[in-house]
Amino acid sequence: MNKDINFDFDRQNRIGIIEAILGEHKNVDQLKKICKQVLDKSELVFITRINFEKAQCLLDDFSNADYYKEACCLVIGKNFKKLSSEKKVAIVAGGTSDSRVSLEAKLALEVHGVESKTFIDVGVAGLHRLISKLDEIEKFEVIIVCAGMEGALATVLGGLLSQPIIAVPVSIGYGVSKDGFAALNSMLSSCAPGISVMNIDNGYGAAMAALRIIKSF
Amino acid sequence: MNKDINFDFDRQNRIGIIEAILGEHKNVDQLKKICKQVLDKSELVFITRINFEKAQCLLDDFSNADYYKEACCLVIGKNFKKLSSEKKVAIVAGGTSDSRVSLEAKLALEVHGVESKTFIDVGVAGLHRLISKLDEIEKFEVIIVCAGMEGALATVLGGLLSQPIIAVPVSIGYGVSKDGFAALNSMLSSCAPGISVMNIDNGYGAAMAALRIIKSF
Amino acid sequence: MNKDINFDFDRQNRIGIIEAILGEHKNVDQLKKICKQVLDKSELVFITRINFEKAQCLLDDFSNADYYKEACCLVIGKNFKKLSSEKKVAIVAGGTSDSRVSLEAKLALEVHGVESKTFIDVGVAGLHRLISKLDEIEKFEVIIVCAGMEGALATVLGGLLSQPIIAVPVSIGYGVSKDGFAALNSMLSSCAPGISVMNIDNGYGAAMAALRIIKSF
Amino acid sequence: MNKDINFDFDRQNRIGIIEAILGEHKNVDQLKKICKQVLDKSELVFITRINFEKAQCLLDDFSNADYYKEACCLVIGKNFKKLSSEKKVAIVAGGTSDSRVSLEAKLALEVHGVESKTFIDVGVAGLHRLISKLDEIEKFEVIIVCAGMEGALATVLGGLLSQPIIAVPVSIGYGVSKDGFAALNSMLSSCAPGISVMNIDNGYGAAMAALRIIKSF
Amino acid sequence: MNKDINFDFDRQNRIGIIEAILGEHKNVDQLKKICKQVLDKSELVFITRINFEKAQCLLDDFSNADYYKEACCLVIGKNFKKLSSEKKVAIVAGGTSDSRVSLEAKLALEVHGVESKTFIDVGVAGLHRLISKLDEIEKFEVIIVCAGMEGALATVLGGLLSQPIIAVPVSIGYGVSKDGFAALNSMLSSCAPGISVMNIDNGYGAAMAALRIIKSF
Amino acid sequence: MNKDINFDFDRQNRIGIIEAILGEHKNVDQLKKICKQVLDKSELVFITRINFEKAQCLLDDFSNADYYKEACCLVIGKNFKKLSSEKKVAIVAGGTSDSRVSLEAKLALEVHGVESKTFIDVGVAGLHRLISKLDEIEKFEVIIVCAGMEGALATVLGGLLSQPIIAVPVSIGYGVSKDGFAALNSMLSSCAPGISVMNIDNGYGAAMAALRIIKSF
Amino acid sequence: MNKDINFDFDRQNRIGIIEAILGEHKNVDQLKKICKQVLDKSELVFITRINFEKAQCLLDDFSNADYYKEACCLVIGKNFKKLSSEKKVAIVAGGTSDSRVSLEAKLALEVHGVESKTFIDVGVAGLHRLISKLDEIEKFEVIIVCAGMEGALATVLGGLLSQPIIAVPVSIGYGVSKDGFAALNSMLSSCAPGISVMNIDNGYGAAMAALRIIKSF
Amino acid sequence: MNKDINFDFDRQNRIGIIEAILGEHKNVDQLKKICKQVLDKSELVFITRINFEKAQCLLDDFSNADYYKEACCLVIGKNFKKLSSEKKVAIVAGGTSDSRVSLEAKLALEVHGVESKTFIDVGVAGLHRLISKLDEIEKFEVIIVCAGMEGALATVLGGLLSQPIIAVPVSIGYGVSKDGFAALNSMLSSCAPGISVMNIDNGYGAAMAALRIIKSF
Repeated sequence: MNKDINFDFDRQNRIGIIEAILGEHKNVDQLKKICKQVLDKSELVFITRINFEKAQCLLDDFSNADYYKEACCLVIGKNFKKLSSEKKVAIVAGGTSDSRVSLEAKLALEVHGVESKTFIDVGVAGLHRLISKLDEIEKFEVIIVCAGMEGALATVLGGLLSQPIIAVPVSIGYGVSKDGFAALNSMLSSCAPGISVMNIDNGYGAAMAALRIIKSF
Repeated sequence: MNKDINFDFDRQNRIGIIEAILGEHKNVDQLKKICKQVLDKSELVFITRINFEKAQCLLDDFSNADYYKEACCLVIGKNFKKLSSEKKVAIVAGGTSDSRVSLEAKLALEVHGVESKTFIDVGVAGLHRLISKLDEIEKFEVIIVCAGMEGALATVLGGLLSQPIIAVPVSIGYGVSKDGFAALNSMLSSCAPGISVMNIDNGYGAAMAALRIIKSF
Repeated sequence: MNKDINFDFDRQNRIGIIEAILGEHKNVDQLKKICKQVLDKSELVFITRINFEKAQCLLDDFSNADYYKEACCLVIGKNFKKLSSEKKVAIVAGGTSDSRVSLEAKLALEVHGVESKTFIDVGVAGLHRLISKLDEIEKFEVIIVCAGMEGALATVLGGLLSQPIIAVPVSIGYGVSKDGFAALNSMLSSCAPGISVMNIDNGYGAAMAALRIIKSF
Repeated sequence: MNKDINFDFDRQNRIGIIEAILGEHKNVDQLKKICKQVLDKSELVFITRINFEKAQCLLDDFSNADYYKEACCLVIGKNFKKLSSEKKVAIVAGGTSDSRVSLEAKLALEVHGVESKTFIDVGVAGLHRLISKLDEIEKFEVIIVCAGMEGALATVLGGLLSQPIIAVPVSIGYGVSKDGFAALNSMLSSCAPGISVMNIDNGYGAAMAALRIIKSF
Repeated sequence: MNKDINFDFDRQNRIGIIEAILGEHKNVDQLKKICKQVLDKSELVFITRINFEKAQCLLDDFSNADYYKEACCLVIGKNFKKLSSEKKVAIVAGGTSDSRVSLEAKLALEVHGVESKTFIDVGVAGLHRLISKLDEIEKFEVIIVCAGMEGALATVLGGLLSQPIIAVPVSIGYGVSKDGFAALNSMLSSCAPGISVMNIDNGYGAAMAALRIIKSF
Repeated sequence: MNKDINFDFDRQNRIGIIEAILGEHKNVDQLKKICKQVLDKSELVFITRINFEKAQCLLDDFSNADYYKEACCLVIGKNFKKLSSEKKVAIVAGGTSDSRVSLEAKLALEVHGVESKTFIDVGVAGLHRLISKLDEIEKFEVIIVCAGMEGALATVLGGLLSQPIIAVPVSIGYGVSKDGFAALNSMLSSCAPGISVMNIDNGYGAAMAALRIIKSF
Repeated sequence: MNKDINFDFDRQNRIGIIEAILGEHKNVDQLKKICKQVLDKSELVFITRINFEKAQCLLDDFSNADYYKEACCLVIGKNFKKLSSEKKVAIVAGGTSDSRVSLEAKLALEVHGVESKTFIDVGVAGLHRLISKLDEIEKFEVIIVCAGMEGALATVLGGLLSQPIIAVPVSIGYGVSKDGFAALNSMLSSCAPGISVMNIDNGYGAAMAALRIIKSF
Repeated sequence: MNKDINFDFDRQNRIGIIEAILGEHKNVDQLKKICKQVLDKSELVFITRINFEKAQCLLDDFSNADYYKEACCLVIGKNFKKLSSEKKVAIVAGGTSDSRVSLEAKLALEVHGVESKTFIDVGVAGLHRLISKLDEIEKFEVIIVCAGMEGALATVLGGLLSQPIIAVPVSIGYGVSKDGFAALNSMLSSCAPGISVMNIDNGYGAAMAALRIIKSF
C-alpha cells in the first residue's frame, strides 16, 4: 500500500501552511514512511499528538528530529519558507493543565516563523490575575485562548480586547466538563461578540488560524 | 379521578416550603381542582410556568388571584406562616432575557417572606458593568445567579464573593446554547469553588435553596 | 424592573463593536425600553433574530427604523463611528436556504463600515460551481462560509485559499442535519487547517470576527 | 514555562477558600512546581483526584505530606486560617461505592475547620435504613448527599428535611448510569424543592458550597 | 395505496393482544381506512395518542366510537375475547401531570378485561403520602408506576414491594427532565432490583406487559 | 440577491440525477425564482418536503405543476432524459405512518423512469405478514426499506434476501423513537450484513441510491 | 468508616430478593468487609461484575466461595430461603458475545431456586435458527431476551410469543452500537407490544424481574 | 454451553454472503469453538476486529490460518463458492489513518471473489490530489469511500461520479470527530444525492453492500 500514500506536498505553496501529521491514529511504520516522503521533498515534518513511545522510534531513525514532550509534537528538518512577520500572538491559558495544547500552538507558530508568548494560569476564577496581565496581553496582534472546565476565560477576554480572538477548548476536567464539550459549547455561545472557536485540543489549528490572519495583512 | 389528587398539605409544616404547582403540564380543569383543595386548607396557591391563557381562566374563578405576567406565575391567597428574616437575597442576571426566571425566584422568595433585589444586565462580556455593582451585591447574604448563553457570570461572581452562590442556567440563546444546556454544563464545571446549580430555568428551586439556607440560621 | 436594564454603552469605545440585541427571547416591551436607552446615547440599535411581528411594533414607534426581512434584523439610527476600511469580506454559502444567516453577516458588516459580497449556491455537491467562482472569491481579504447539511464547503475552501476563513454552520436540513449540529461538528473537525468556527446560525458573530481581523491591521 | 505559573494566592483572603489543585491532568513535575510555590507562601496544599503513583512521588519530596488513599487526596502543610465553627455537615451516601467522593468532601471540610460525619449505605432501595438514621442526620446544619445510579436519595431526603441540601452525583454504575449522568439529571429534576447540585464526583465542591453557607452565618 | 394496508388481524389469536393503532403520525383518512378494515373483521379498534380534532372526525363516522379525552384514546366496537381474570393492577403515579399516561394504561387494561385502580399524587417528595397508601397498593398483583421528573417513585416502591413492577417514565418537566429522559434513565438504573421499564409515555405498553403476566398464570 | 442563485444545471448530465429542491427551509419567493430558472433550461422541477400552503402558491403560478400531497412533493414539467430500465425497486414499509417517506421514494424513482411497488404494513411484530409477501418482494432488483420505531424490518429482510438493500429510518414514534434516531442506529448496527442506510426520512436519497445501482449495470 | 456500612439484611424478608453486590466500583477491602457482614447473618453473598483479579483475592479468604468466570459473578454460602417453583425461564440470546449477561441472569435465577435454559445464537439475521427453536422456547413461563447490536430479536419474539418478555440490551458492537444504546432504544421502541426493558447488561435485574413474576403467582 | 452455539451455516446458500465473526467481544475459547464448527462444514472462517494477541492463539491451533495485521482480520480455510465477476470496486480513503477499515473492506471483497483497488490520501483538503485520480476511479463499478474527521470526501465524490457510492465513516480524529460520529452525520446529510452509509468503521459491511450490488446484476 506504500505507493498509495499521497502527501499534500503542494499545500505550502498553495495556502502557505505546512501539513501537520496527526500522530495519534498512525503506527510507527506508517509514520516513518510518511516522514521519508516529506523529507525527500526537503520539506519540514511536523507531527502532532505523538506519544513518547512512538516518538522514540522516530528519533532513532531520524537524526535531526526533535521531540517536544510537553507539547507531544515531533519536528524533523527545517522550514525554508518561514514567514518573517513582526506580528505576535499571545497564548492565554486558564491553568497548568492546558499547557500541552498551548505549547502545541506555540510550536506550530514557531515553525512557521511567528513569535508568540504564553500566559498560563490567568483563569477567571481569580479575576485579578487576568486583569494584572491585561496591559501586556493587549500588545499582541492576535489572541489564542486555551481553556477547559467552563471556558469562561474566552468571554472575559472578548469583552475587554478588540483583537482577533481564537478560542481552543481543552479536554481537561471531569463529569460534565470531561472531554472538553462544556468548554466548547461555552465558547461557541459566548456573549462576547466575534470570538471564533477551534475543535477541542486543536492547538495546531488555532495557530494556523492565527497564521492565516498574520499572513493576509 | 378527582378523589385521587393528593396534595402535599403537610409539606409546609415538615420542611417549611410551600409546594409549588407546575402549571405547564396541567390543563385548566386539573389546575382548578388542585387550587380548590389547597385553598380549602387555607394554604397559599403558588403556580409556576403558567401561561396567560390558563391564568386568565383561573383569574375568572378565584377573585383573590394575582397573575405575574413577566414571571409566568399565579398566586392565590395568603401565606400565614411567612418567615420574618432580615437576610436578603441578591438575584443577579446576565441580561434582560433572563428576567422571567429571575422574577420567578424573586416572587417565590417574597411569598415566603424573604426580601430580594434583582441586578439585571451585568453580564461578563461587559465586565465593568458587573464590577461597578459588586459593592452593592456583596451586602446580600445569599446570591442567586441567572444566566443563559455560556453562563460565565456564575464563575466570575464565584471568584469574587464568599457568600453562598446558587446558579440557575437559563434557556435562552440558539444553536449550542439553545435550551440552556451550555449554561448548565458551564455552571456545573465552574472553576470557582462551591457554586451549586439548579435545573435549567428553575427560579423557584433557586429561591427554595436560598430559603433553606436563610431558615437554617 | 426598568431601572435595572444596564446596556453596555461603553462597548463600542472599548472594543469597537456595536452590541447587538438578541430579539428572539425578548418581548416587545423589553425591546422598546432597550431601544430608547440606546438611542438616547446617540448609538445605533442593531437587533438580530427579530421576527416580522415584533419588528412591526418597533417600526410603528421608531420612525428611523429599518427592518431587513430576509436577514430578520432591525436597525435604528446611525453608526457615527463607522470604520472606513478597503478590506472586503466574501460571504460564501452552500444554498439559498443559508441566505438568512449570510445576510445577517452582510448587514452586520455594513453597519460597521465594511463592504462584503455574497456568493450563494456554490455548494460542493456541484464542485464546478465553486471552482468557477474561485478567482473572484480569492480577491477578498476575509472569507465567511455559511453552510448547513454536512458543511463540506468550509473544508474545500480551506484547502484552496490562504485567507482567514470563518465558518458558520446553518440550521437547515432534517434528520441528522436538523438544527445544524452535523455542519458544526463537520466544520470543527475539518481536515483543512486553520478554519475557525462560530455558533450555529451566528452570522452576526462571524461578521464581528471578520471585523476584529480587519480592524487590527 | 515555570515563571508563567500563577497560583491564586489571594483566594483564601478574598473568599476564604483554599484553592484545590486538580491532580488528574497534571504530571508530577507540574505538581511539584505548584506545591513549592504554595508552600513558599506558607499556605496549605490540597490536591484532589491524585492517584497513588503520583502521590508517592510527592510524598518522597515533601516530608509533611499526607496521602488519603480512599479519598485520592494529598495534603501538605497546615491551614493557619481554619474556621472555628460549631456548625456541622452530614455527608449521606447511597452505598460503599460512593465513598471516594464522600471522603473527599469530608477531608475538604476538615482542612477548613468544619466537622462532618458520614452516613454510608442508606440508599432508598432499603428505605428503612435511611429512616432509622433520620433523627441523627436531622441534627446537622448542612446535608451533603452523594449518590450514583438513579440518585433518588437526594429527593427522599429533600422531602423530609428542611436544611440546605447539596447533592453530588457519583459516577458509579453501568449502562445508562455509567459516568453519573443519570444521577446528575435525576438530582437536577428532583421533585423535592430547593436541592442544589454539584458536578459529578465533585466532593470538594460540595464541601466548599457547605463552607460558604457556614461561613456566611 | 389502499390495498397495501395490512393490519395484523391475527395478533389477538397469536399473542392475545389487541393491536393498538398509533394515532399520532396518521392523518384522518389513513385512520378511517384502518378502522373500517378492523371493524369488518369484528375486532375492536383501539387508537392511542389521538388528539381531539382527529377524534372528532372519527366520532362523526363511527357511531359506536368513544373518545377518552384525558387518556387521548379512541375505542370503537367491542372486544369479544376479553380475559376474565381476578388479578388486578395498581397504577401508581407521581402527580396529576402523569394522568394521561396512567389513564391510557387503565383503559388498555380495561378493554382486555383486566381491572385496575389508579393512585395519583403519591410522589416521593412527600413520602408520607406514599406510605399511607402502601397497604392498599400491596393488595394488587401487578404494579405499574408512572412518573416524570426524576422518577424516584419506582425505586422507592421497588424496595418496599415484591410484586412485578413495570415503570413508565413520563415526559413532563422542563430543562433536564423535559421529554422524560431523566426519568427513563433513573428508572433503568434503579438500585431496587427487578424493575422493568417501558418507553417514555408508553402507558399502553405497560398495560400489555401487565397483561402478559396476568395471562400467563 | 437574485443573481446569486446558482442552480446545478449540469448535474443531470454529469451524474444523471435531477437535483431535488428542498422545499422546507425556503420561502415561496425563493422557490418561485428557482423554479423559473430550472424551467428556462427545460429541466424538470422536483421539490421535496414542501407543505400544502407553499405548494398552493406554486400551483397558482405554474400551470403544469402537480402536487403529491401524501408524498409532500411538487413536480413541474417533464424529464426528457428518463432512463428506460426493466429493473424494478420494491419499497417495503413497516406501517401506514411510513407512507410519506415511501411515496417520496416512489415518486423520485418514477420521474427518473424507474418502476417501483410499495409494500406497506409488513412490520416484523407480525412476522407472518412479511413472510407471506416475501416471494413477491424477492422478484425486485433493489429493495428500499422504510421503517420507524426500532427499524427491525431492515435486519429481517437483510437475512432473507440477497439483493441490494437500502434502509431509510422514519421519524415516527415517541419517547426514545421520536425523530427516528432509534431506527437509524438500529439500521446502522444491523447484524444482517451489507445493509446501507440513508438519513432519517430521506426517501428521495434512497431512490437516488437505487438509481445509481440500476443505472450502472 | 467500617461501622458505616449498612447492608440491607432485611431485603430478602421484605421483597424476597437477595441483594446483589456490584463488584465493579468496590475495592477488595470493601468487598471483604461486606462479605463478612453478610455471612455473619448466614445470608448468601452474590457479587456481580467482579473481575478475575478481585475474585481471586476473595477466593483466598472464603473457602466456600465459587467464581463463575464467564458470568463474572462470585457466590459465597447458601441461600436457605430458595423458592421451589416449577415455573421456568428461557434465556434467549442473539450471539456468543451476549453470553456473559445471559449467564449472569441464569446464575441469579439459580441461587433463588428458579430453573432456566439458555438459547444462544438465535439472532434474527438468520431467522430460520430462531424459528426452529420456537416450539421449545414457547414451553417456558417467562422469556428473557439478551441482544446487542440492533436488538431486533426482542421485537421478533414479542410478535410470536404471548409470555412475559424481559429484554436486556447488551453492550457489544462498535460505532453506533457500542455500549448498547442502539439495542436499548430499539427494545424500548419495539413495535411488539408489552416488552419491558432492563438497563444495558443488567442480567441480574432481568432475573429478578422474572423472579418477581414467578413468585407472585 | 457449547451445544448452544448455533452458527448460521446456511447463510451463504441463502444470501451468498459468508458470515463474518466479530472477534472483538469474544474470548479465545469462544473463537476456537466457533472456528472448529465452521471448518467442520468446510466453510471459510472470516474474523474481523481481532487483535494480534487473540489471533496468535488461533494461528497456533489452525495451520491454514492467515492473520492480516493491518486489517485486523483472520481468515482460515477456503471459500469454495467464490463469485467470479469482472466488476471491480474502488476503495477511496481520506488518509493513512483510514487504512485499517479500507483493508478490511478489500479483504472481505477478496474472499468473496471480487477485485478491488485502494486509493489512499486523496482527502478533500488537497482537492488536486483527488481530481488527479478521478479518471482512474471512474473506471470502477462501485465506489467505497472511507473517511474520518468531517468525511467531506463522500460528498465531493458523490457530486462528480454516477456510480453507486457506499460511505464508511472512520473513527479517527479527536474532540468532536473522535469516534467517527462527525463523519457519520456528515455522510448521512450529504448534499450529494444517493450516497448510502454504513456504521462507523464497518469496512466488512461496505464490502458486503458492494457484493450485493455486483451479485445482483
